[in-house]
Amino acid sequence: MPVGELFNPRSIALVGATDKSGWSISTLTNLRTHGFRGPVHLVNPRGGVVHGEQACRSLADIPGQVDLAYVMVPTTAVLPVLREGAKLGIRHYVILTAGFGETGPEGAALEAEIIGFARENDLTVLGPNGNGFINAAGDVTPYGLPIPSPLLRGPVGVVLQSGALASSVLGFAQARNVGISLLTSMGNESLVTVTDVIDYLVDDPATKAIALFLESVRDPAAFSRAARRALLAGKPIVALKIGRSRLASRTAQAHTGALVGDDNVIDAAFRQLGVVRVRSLEDLIITAGLLAEVGPLPGPRIGVVTPSGGASEIIADRAEDEGLELPAFAPETVARLREIVPSFGTVQNPLDVTGYVLIDRTLLGRALEAVTADPGVDAVMLLSDLPRVAPPDPAPVYAMFSASAKRIAEAPRPVVVVGNVLTDVTEFGRDVQREAGFPYVAGGIEHGMHAIGAAVRWGRAYRAAVAADGAAQTRAVARAVASAAAGEPGTGVWAEHRAAALLASAGIPVVPGELVYDEESAVAAAVGFGYPVVLKVAADGLGHKSDVGGVRLGLAGARAVGRAYREVVAAAAAVPGAGRVGALVQPQRGGGVELLVGVVRDPAWGLTLAVGLGGIWVEALRDTALRVLPVDAAEVRRALDELRGAALLRGARGAEPADLDAVAEVVARVAAFAGSLGDDLESLEINPLLVRGSRVEALDALITWRG
Amino acid sequence: MPVGELFNPRSIALVGATDKSGWSISTLTNLRTHGFRGPVHLVNPRGGVVHGEQACRSLADIPGQVDLAYVMVPTTAVLPVLREGAKLGIRHYVILTAGFGETGPEGAALEAEIIGFARENDLTVLGPNGNGFINAAGDVTPYGLPIPSPLLRGPVGVVLQSGALASSVLGFAQARNVGISLLTSMGNESLVTVTDVIDYLVDDPATKAIALFLESVRDPAAFSRAARRALLAGKPIVALKIGRSRLASRTAQAHTGALVGDDNVIDAAFRQLGVVRVRSLEDLIITAGLLAEVGPLPGPRIGVVTPSGGASEIIADRAEDEGLELPAFAPETVARLREIVPSFGTVQNPLDVTGYVLIDRTLLGRALEAVTADPGVDAVMLLSDLPRVAPPDPAPVYAMFSASAKRIAEAPRPVVVVGNVLTDVTEFGRDVQREAGFPYVAGGIEHGMHAIGAAVRWGRAYRAAVAADGAAQTRAVARAVASAAAGEPGTGVWAEHRAAALLASAGIPVVPGELVYDEESAVAAAVGFGYPVVLKVAADGLGHKSDVGGVRLGLAGARAVGRAYREVVAAAAAVPGAGRVGALVQPQRGGGVELLVGVVRDPAWGLTLAVGLGGIWVEALRDTALRVLPVDAAEVRRALDELRGAALLRGARGAEPADLDAVAEVVARVAAFAGSLGDDLESLEINPLLVRGSRVEALDALITWRG
Repeated sequence: MPVGELFNPRSIALVGATDKSGWSISTLTNLRTHGFRGPVHLVNPRGGVVHGEQACRSLADIPGQVDLAYVMVPTTAVLPVLREGAKLGIRHYVILTAGFGETGPEGAALEAEIIGFARENDLTVLGPNGNGFINAAGDVTPYGLPIPSPLLRGPVGVVLQSGALASSVLGFAQARNVGISLLTSMGNESLVTVTDVIDYLVDDPATKAIALFLESVRDPAAFSRAARRALLAGKPIVALKIGRSRLASRTAQAHTGALVGDDNVIDAAFRQLGVVRVRSLEDLIITAGLLAEVGPLPGPRIGVVTPSGGASEIIADRAEDEGLELPAFAPETVARLREIVPSFGTVQNPLDVTGYVLIDRTLLGRALEAVTADPGVDAVMLLSDLPRVAPPDPAPVYAMFSASAKRIAEAPRPVVVVGNVLTDVTEFGRDVQREAGFPYVAGGIEHGMHAIGAAVRWGRAYRAAVAADGAAQTRAVARAVASAAAGEPGTGVWAEHRAAALLASAGIPVVPGELVYDEESAVAAAVGFGYPVVLKVAADGLGHKSDVGGVRLGLAGARAVGRAYREVVAAAAAVPGAGRVGALVQPQRGGGVELLVGVVRDPAWGLTLAVGLGGIWVEALRDTALRVLPVDAAEVRRALDELRGAALLRGARGAEPADLDAVAEVVARVAAFAGSLGDDLESLEINPLLVRGSRVEALDALITWRG
Repeated sequence: MPVGELFNPRSIALVGATDKSGWSISTLTNLRTHGFRGPVHLVNPRGGVVHGEQACRSLADIPGQVDLAYVMVPTTAVLPVLREGAKLGIRHYVILTAGFGETGPEGAALEAEIIGFARENDLTVLGPNGNGFINAAGDVTPYGLPIPSPLLRGPVGVVLQSGALASSVLGFAQARNVGISLLTSMGNESLVTVTDVIDYLVDDPATKAIALFLESVRDPAAFSRAARRALLAGKPIVALKIGRSRLASRTAQAHTGALVGDDNVIDAAFRQLGVVRVRSLEDLIITAGLLAEVGPLPGPRIGVVTPSGGASEIIADRAEDEGLELPAFAPETVARLREIVPSFGTVQNPLDVTGYVLIDRTLLGRALEAVTADPGVDAVMLLSDLPRVAPPDPAPVYAMFSASAKRIAEAPRPVVVVGNVLTDVTEFGRDVQREAGFPYVAGGIEHGMHAIGAAVRWGRAYRAAVAADGAAQTRAVARAVASAAAGEPGTGVWAEHRAAALLASAGIPVVPGELVYDEESAVAAAVGFGYPVVLKVAADGLGHKSDVGGVRLGLAGARAVGRAYREVVAAAAAVPGAGRVGALVQPQRGGGVELLVGVVRDPAWGLTLAVGLGGIWVEALRDTALRVLPVDAAEVRRALDELRGAALLRGARGAEPADLDAVAEVVARVAAFAGSLGDDLESLEINPLLVRGSRVEALDALITWRG
């Protein structure tokens, strides 16, 4: 749903305006004091004077056109307002009123009526149960809570699935001197969704980064489309998505009634979409602010310039946490710095220019210039706080920050400025920053380093997305072909013999096997493969073979094969509904590393690939990497590299090193094939996928169909 | 070294005072403006007027007694000042001057001279190369950098091994309204050490919590003693110890020349000593502030009261991170809350009392009262920010916070107040807090939850320490006995047969074995144990048996034993310096879980126990838990529970569950025995220690002696 007109009305009516309501007072005050240039009409059924102004009795009494109605009437009066407004041609609404879906079935019915009416009449509705929005870039602020002054305009668009946090976020952004372009409090998202607002912000020239507070991702497909658009447009999305803990997801369900997906899948999906996930409100704003300022950082190699040894050491610790590298300076940089840094200092990265900065005010700037010229770093971090209190003569402070700002602007590499600790930017600090044209200062080493790490990771995702965009169409065609080739979907559970045949038909290497229905054929098959062999019961509707003792390994002769056949068939035949029972004979494989490759349908995000090492790695350590489909081999390779047990694949403990590219290729083929099986596929699991060097082979498989 | 007089002088001389030095200006200004009541004398060899006052030419010219000399003279002039002062009976010094050990060998020599002179003459010296101290509780502030106003007095003692960070820490503490009792900038710690200051703070009635910034722990034994005193006195220590990354430890060495120990050992030692380790300056101050206010929390079950659904969900996520539990409310609490919370709200923990707080200002307070009465929670977290800007009529704000403060003070359970986001406490906020007697507000959910987690963990350590204190003497006696029994220390490497005998003599269960020197005896031993057996080469000076193919498993008959004996002996005999070569025959053990138990001597912390599961758990996952000795079985049990592979010990994958108390008992015995072996022990390793249910048995062991 397009929301450009909703956020940029030229005239506004406040319906339900009353002196008794704090929301009413705040909304009018906000519109009057934060620059809205159009008319604001107050509507109260009793008319009279409200907030010191003459109120109309109804929308119909308003002279002239109304672009947006801000609705604060009681719950049952909301629909009548919409009816009247629609008749008058008012197309955009913010509904502050609560008492709808969030309260129970009765409210949900009322909400459904509103949704139906709005859809029929092509109305755009933000809310209900939301505080409205602050379009700071457009000077339109129909927002029901006090906006702390000054409202700082800037590059960060904020979208919140929580009304109560909006004030905290606004206050914190102001404290950190992070300007916003738009802030919306989504409410129940009956019609206008988070995704709609993201789409708007991607196209909004005032917005350079997007900050989200999410309780749930209601429509993952739509969200993915919008996130991908943002990524390709170079607009980073930073998200605080709650529900990491089981407890929080229970809490969120109580609050919104929305389904909260498996958090690990969300983690994987966000990573694939280049959405930067953060843990705190502080990181949300500080990271979005930094990304809006510096954009994608070209790489992880950071040169660090500080006036403090202690801070350097904290930075070194935090750099390792964030996957940042602090390479040694190039010889020419070291030589240059030796000329600059006092002799009792140590020239290294991170650089401490020493407390001598208190005597020589140019020291830090000259060191910065030397480090930004270093060819071995991708970006430079400068540790510098904004001044807090104006000295009696503030002119030298302005001059110093102006000089630094010029140096940073002219530097051949991006410079990110980070303060020591997270305190407010004071009015004087804000003034110095603005007058000197000094860049954004991330609040404190702790959160600042996190933001730099995010800028590097996001830069990587951004470049990969841009590079992959051309290849995307080719892949889409390939997928369509694969899909057409897949043929009829199945039902129920397909045990190994059928699943394996299907996988083999798709070009996935599967251990050879012969399906036999008598003892003699079993022995003949074994002879054909050569001993030792494996014999597994084969019967439709029998998922877990080992539960019925249906797997026999290391059979080294005809007698052993014969006995194994008789036993497994007898055991399986005793299981109700097992169907026709036979056995699968396969050559026994040994050595190598066993992987588990599964594709399962997540209720929210659709087919999701899980890959990990078998055995304890999955069972005790939960060491799996997830990816939402589709994935290519490069993405699978990255997933493999994430595994804690990856060392085993690389040849730890004397094992033959696996050809990880070959493994990734096969796993990607499995994923693509699963994706081609259509909506009836519930899950497809290969366990184990045996890897010996570059030989990759599925030893067992199970496919489950829906319905 | 006692430092009580150093920090509480009645008269001070500033030696090297000059109008040209910022340090000189700051020190005098600080003393004059922050309440120092005694005389401050300026000393300048040229005399005249300095800082607008008449200066003396030397210490000798000062009329009356000088308790403390603050020395800012050039490096080479420091020792003469000390000589003069000592003659005049001045016993306490702060040396701001740099240019000593931190600059190289020449400076180190000068520093050594100062140390020698001070020791001889019983002088107390803080520094050199430090900014001095701020004794806020005693109104003595000889400190060389500007102190931001107002200097907030309070319960947190701060000790910093970094001068440059002191300003950041002071500024941040002020921003969060955390008052300090004492702040010291340690400098080179030539004489007065961090440990001395901790000891002072433990006895200082103004100090309730201690915050440390540490580059290195120079004397672990002394630090441990001081930390233990603090713990038993109920004064929490919070420490930001840098050097977590390899890079930071390199950086720290460059700065201080101090040895930085293995960070994992520091982690273990801090945990054992009840020292709360944090990652950021923000957590350092916020956590120390909270611990100073609430002390040890009685348990991890937290009831949460908030005015926001979104915040509740962030809190639930963070609670899980911090090991906190948010139990369901008791039925009577639920019933009470249903009367309080609006019907559209959900009564659960964490509790969102809904945005209705904006209308009913008593809502949050009444809900808080209900939750603090819940018998199932150990403590209550209230989400509440201090006001930032004074409204036109501030009286209701004061009244509201006074009412809340009263409720919190009278609550039957500790109440911890946390704000939404980390912003400064404004002057108005500070005033409201003071006037209303409102408790400390931890800055933001992110850092506040971390602090609550720390208060719970510290509370646990505190109670354990107090409980164990009575038993300590008994244990010390037992250790002395064990030590006496240990007999002669060894030299070189003791391979299995000697190591095992020693362990067995100490009552540690060791698999039986027979040392043989011919084939016939090998077979006879095997028959005695029953087949299958294990045969291992035995030769002094041969550490890694498997390197020479010296271990043969699963020998099932006389022929196999005979051949194995011949082969391993031949292989070992070929190794130069192997000494007399024989073989050890043991019954073969099967099943169970294999542990690695090692005691190694850390260069800084002394004997350290490492325990973990064998195989990939140690090699690929580095899954070991460390403890600095001494440890008791309870501490070992906690170490075992920390292991990621603990699930295997508890019976995952069909294994027999291990009797963890029995395992802990044996491991503790190993540790105690290692501790009794004296200073010559380098390491003692049992690998594997086989655990099958309650049977615990060392299968192999190696002891390495020093020197």
